[in-house]
Amino acid sequence: MTVIEVRTERREQFVDVTQRVAETVTSSGVAEGIAHIWCPHTTAAVTVNEAADPSVARDIVAGLARFVPREAGWQHAEGNADAHVKASLLGASASVPVSGGRLALGTWQGVFFCEFDGPRTRRIEVRVSRL
Amino acid sequence: MTVIEVRTERREQFVDVTQRVAETVTSSGVAEGIAHIWCPHTTAAVTVNEAADPSVARDIVAGLARFVPREAGWQHAEGNADAHVKASLLGASASVPVSGGRLALGTWQGVFFCEFDGPRTRRIEVRVSRL
Amino acid sequence: MTVIEVRTERREQFVDVTQRVAETVTSSGVAEGIAHIWCPHTTAAVTVNEAADPSVARDIVAGLARFVPREAGWQHAEGNADAHVKASLLGASASVPVSGGRLALGTWQGVFFCEFDGPRTRRIEVRVSRL
Repeated sequence: MTVIEVRTERREQFVDVTQRVAETVTSSGVAEGIAHIWCPHTTAAVTVNEAADPSVARDIVAGLARFVPREAGWQHAEGNADAHVKASLLGASASVPVSGGRLALGTWQGVFFCEFDGPRTRRIEVRVSRL
Repeated sequence: MTVIEVRTERREQFVDVTQRVAETVTSSGVAEGIAHIWCPHTTAAVTVNEAADPSVARDIVAGLARFVPREAGWQHAEGNADAHVKASLLGASASVPVSGGRLALGTWQGVFFCEFDGPRTRRIEVRVSRL
Repeated sequence: MTVIEVRTERREQFVDVTQRVAETVTSSGVAEGIAHIWCPHTTAAVTVNEAADPSVARDIVAGLARFVPREAGWQHAEGNADAHVKASLLGASASVPVSGGRLALGTWQGVFFCEFDGPRTRRIEVRVSRL
């Protein structure tokens, strides 16, 4: 298992971690398998989406904020209930194929750490299992 | 594979199943791996989120109801189309790390069964794979 | 790994791929495990939901369009930002149990390829890991 540290700079921000996840996969020596990327936080998530145009990640942040507003009469008293809802919508893990010893993403895909209650120092965990 | 029965008491309710999933993992004897938690129902889901403050789970239920209303001109005639939409938004499975023979959740994380069309007697299935 | 080609006919459409995924699982010879279904595209997804009544899939498409509108001042200039948001909401993969050598879905469950920016020729990848 490899821990990747992620520092976020805003309350809501997607950080492209593709390169660091890919290096972990290469180091694992697994040729064919699944890379499991885990977010141990409850106001953040991981997702796979387009990495070529950074406006896509910003649109996802904006799209989520549009229908999960920060203030909406939430019960949770810490002011970050919206972040918890978004975390469950995107999910705490991603399972990405490994093929030929490499992270086997589609042409336009990248792996993102999704911060919804930053800025903070966060981490994700990467485990690679053999098929 | 272990089946965990979950009885729900309301139409929409999150049930914290962390302890029961953790016991299954311990019993499996797997030291390092991934616990796969599966919901075989189509109007329910599983998610990982904060388990310390129960208001977080209630906020997720309320947040989903806010943008997926029960009545919205749905085609599906059984009166639970909203529950099907919510099930796909949160997902039918969770894949959680196992480390040192234990379910390796983050500090604030718990595993929830998410009922969207109860009350019913439901079940989840837990499988543990070795890394 | 098996590639399944999916041709979509509309901009937004769920295609039931259950039978083709099930055949891949049977061919794999794995008795107990997890089938990993991967979508290598960023404006499409995979989900598990009710396959018996096709109106459920149409309701999920309609429900997503309701709170992620096609036009909403998105930054991404290709006119498909809504498709990227929906792709992350449903997710790029599904992990479904395999039991007794067969895809072990619940009674009403099916596996769907979710097109959000068609019509196109798409593909999904299926990998089966042993428990």
